[in-house]
Amino acid sequence: MPTLKVKKIDIDVEKPFALINSQTLEEVKIKHSTNVKVKSEKSEIMCEVFSTTDLILPGYVGLSKESASQLHVKEEKKVNVFVRRRPVSLEHVKQKREGHVWKENEIRTIVNDICSNNYTDLEISMFTLAQYYMGLSMDEIQYLTTSMAEFGITLDFDEPVYDKHSIGGIPGNKVSLVIVPTVAAAGLLIPKTSSRAITSPSGTADTMEVLCDVNFSSDEILEIAPKTRGMLVWGGTLDLSPLDEIVIHRVEQPLGIDPHSQMLASIFSKKVSTGVDYLVLDIPTGEGTKMPTKDDAIDYAHEATELGRRLGIQIEAALSYGEQPLGKAIGPALEAREALNVISGKGPTSVFEKSAELSGILFEMAGLAQPGQGASLAADYINKGKTKEKMEEIIGVQGGDANVTADDIAVGQFTESIKAPKDGYIIKLSNDAIKKIAKAAGTPKHKEAGIYLHKKIGDFCREGEELMTIYSNSEGRLTEALNLSANLNPYILEGMIIKRIKSGP
Amino acid sequence: MPTLKVKKIDIDVEKPFALINSQTLEEVKIKHSTNVKVKSEKSEIMCEVFSTTDLILPGYVGLSKESASQLHVKEEKKVNVFVRRRPVSLEHVKQKREGHVWKENEIRTIVNDICSNNYTDLEISMFTLAQYYMGLSMDEIQYLTTSMAEFGITLDFDEPVYDKHSIGGIPGNKVSLVIVPTVAAAGLLIPKTSSRAITSPSGTADTMEVLCDVNFSSDEILEIAPKTRGMLVWGGTLDLSPLDEIVIHRVEQPLGIDPHSQMLASIFSKKVSTGVDYLVLDIPTGEGTKMPTKDDAIDYAHEATELGRRLGIQIEAALSYGEQPLGKAIGPALEAREALNVISGKGPTSVFEKSAELSGILFEMAGLAQPGQGASLAADYINKGKTKEKMEEIIGVQGGDANVTADDIAVGQFTESIKAPKDGYIIKLSNDAIKKIAKAAGTPKHKEAGIYLHKKIGDFCREGEELMTIYSNSEGRLTEALNLSANLNPYILEGMIIKRIKSGP
Repeated sequence: MPTLKVKKIDIDVEKPFALINSQTLEEVKIKHSTNVKVKSEKSEIMCEVFSTTDLILPGYVGLSKESASQLHVKEEKKVNVFVRRRPVSLEHVKQKREGHVWKENEIRTIVNDICSNNYTDLEISMFTLAQYYMGLSMDEIQYLTTSMAEFGITLDFDEPVYDKHSIGGIPGNKVSLVIVPTVAAAGLLIPKTSSRAITSPSGTADTMEVLCDVNFSSDEILEIAPKTRGMLVWGGTLDLSPLDEIVIHRVEQPLGIDPHSQMLASIFSKKVSTGVDYLVLDIPTGEGTKMPTKDDAIDYAHEATELGRRLGIQIEAALSYGEQPLGKAIGPALEAREALNVISGKGPTSVFEKSAELSGILFEMAGLAQPGQGASLAADYINKGKTKEKMEEIIGVQGGDANVTADDIAVGQFTESIKAPKDGYIIKLSNDAIKKIAKAAGTPKHKEAGIYLHKKIGDFCREGEELMTIYSNSEGRLTEALNLSANLNPYILEGMIIKRIKSGP
Repeated sequence: MPTLKVKKIDIDVEKPFALINSQTLEEVKIKHSTNVKVKSEKSEIMCEVFSTTDLILPGYVGLSKESASQLHVKEEKKVNVFVRRRPVSLEHVKQKREGHVWKENEIRTIVNDICSNNYTDLEISMFTLAQYYMGLSMDEIQYLTTSMAEFGITLDFDEPVYDKHSIGGIPGNKVSLVIVPTVAAAGLLIPKTSSRAITSPSGTADTMEVLCDVNFSSDEILEIAPKTRGMLVWGGTLDLSPLDEIVIHRVEQPLGIDPHSQMLASIFSKKVSTGVDYLVLDIPTGEGTKMPTKDDAIDYAHEATELGRRLGIQIEAALSYGEQPLGKAIGPALEAREALNVISGKGPTSVFEKSAELSGILFEMAGLAQPGQGASLAADYINKGKTKEKMEEIIGVQGGDANVTADDIAVGQFTESIKAPKDGYIIKLSNDAIKKIAKAAGTPKHKEAGIYLHKKIGDFCREGEELMTIYSNSEGRLTEALNLSANLNPYILEGMIIKRIKSGP
């Protein structure tokens, strides 16, 4: 096990590397491009070996600043470098080929190895693609879920925990900013952890961050949430499911896949970690969502409730209409504005209704309302200002301005509107096109960027009337978003020709 | 499409990179770790973006020597750098999940994209693992085979071409060095292309290279082979199947997998490329081979012959005993020696018999012998010195010493023998252990390294008698091989205790 001295080298790349002099590599019989473990007293990382003859002296290993800091080592400090052995658990992964059903301890060793950085990206893809191509049984999904939770941190509350989760897929879904204060206002504990945008223009954490801080430690959450009854924080700070971060980042995003079993395990491992007892699960359904047909959504709902039953989480799944964005605002700042409007009685009814329905389901689960009466109780909370009051309290304890109003929120200064090319009813409004245009305008990184939809499906518009307005904080990005909009045609009007196809070459 | 100036940078790593100043990256809106295409006037490659603040000036792109030479560019020359688009054909790959059967044009676009370097390693794994997990239909295997052949070079002879192929898996399988001259001596055209060792101690090309050159262009083969009737060359020079090189190197070897369909397509695409009409296919069978059971081997033989039928190649498959190495010599030099011994009437009968059997099948296919008579005709060719005479001619035209004898061939000067720990019959001789020990001794890189087996399965040995001798050209590697041998126990003697397991912690 050769010992080399650390030298920081100014190269930035996602996958860690170890840049070593070719003479040293010859001596220690390691080839370039080999996967090695670099181990300090405090930590170890897996690196790919880069070879050089003049950038690094013999006896040294060049590491990026980030790798050095992960290893907690300074320059000239010694680290051990040794060839990574192929993890034994990879044999379990391979057995999937013969239709092998993974046992609990097999899944646990795989999860352990991935979380301990023992798998290369290719090896992780072998695990993820086994799920993608072959699917997992409910037993396997359960073991995967509990193993994933085991390797993350855990929040332990002394009382029942309520939660709302949306499987995502539609832009503008800011309902958590209405649901959490509504449910908390009724006294139920709802310490909601949420994600940042992965493919969408804004995740709940991105939207909430417009109003206040969302980075809290588990100790802080355990202290604050029981008092306010609700929080809206970013789950990423908490390291709830290390496997998830690795798999999503290194395989699922690059390949653009999200295997069913991994999606379920990903959601539910975090519910296990955060001690959720009652969950309302929002499943946006329809063309352009993750569940294109109602049958897909129903199957998914049954699987989720069954998985919940096995994990001791009571679940009610709600299929929601997802063929167009929810509400009118897309992008962190615009969505935060709209959420504040809704709890002040000024928002679009679609956001109000969906928030009340989902909050109401939690009220019914908690016994606060009779079956079928939850939504109207929730509507009362919103209409009577209790939701608003609770939201102000939450924003305050999370370090924001408790008295913030929708008008206080800055949005992109460069704007331009898309206008109707002719008279007609809107028959389609594409989630996918809206997402892409919003991202071109700068979301989710630039919180002020986004889209405001003046018209939605079923609305009538006159030629030249505004369909939507794009917001950006740079003229260049606004132009890009406008160009994309011209290409993607997010709105389809009745009678509009979508594409013309000529015969011939 | 930004234009940057080339700067060579002294970093050696398998996967091409483009090292760019972070300021430039900001300007052109490319993130580190993105996959980009770097394009010169003559060529283009796919690179991963590394970012730096001081190793490369703004406006430059740092490339490895190898990348610069692949692009045919010198320092200060301009290249274009642009973000790679995810290839559209990846959608076909993904469809495999729903049990989609790939159409011919879908497979062709996938193969085209991979050969054109449009796929990342992860994306290739998605294609290879689809095969691994889901399997392919015979139609799909056929399309894959012909597409793979299309993207490589082709050899066109004006007469029927004969060939022998072994699917590999056992060490010491040097029969091609006997079969090719035997078949050529009878006047049949057998321009055999073969591979170098991938996991074995010596590929046919490695062994032949001990005796003469094996690197020939397609023009040279087309000129020489019709005259000598036989050649033994390395297929790697010929670029017969570019996809194969990419897939094997970048996914199959790192993951240690070899999907059935890819293995068939890999073999047969090269047969199509080299214009093979008649093929005898050697399938070593039994524990420790690629075909552990006879049923596996028979299934494989049926698939191979069916694929051959579709491609217009007449095939006879021969299942051979593969539970121990073939003959007594393992490693390039030792195997070349043994092959010369066999054609001089002095080699082990197992090599002689197998060579005669397989040559005989080709004789029968060609109508030179009645069914069942081929092997004895082949034995005649060997016994009467015709094989030897032809081999000398082939070695001569391939630039070697036509009069070479077994004794002329140098083998490793550092040797040590493993001795029997007790009296007994040998009941097992592990292919896998022998491969690993031979590789530790230096094969296939060091041609003089290897193993000579004094005893084989069924032999009786006295305590202290030599079982095998290890050859190496370095004392260090010899010690490593000896240590490995002590760990791996390549020989099992009847009544020997293999492992003792105690109860308790």
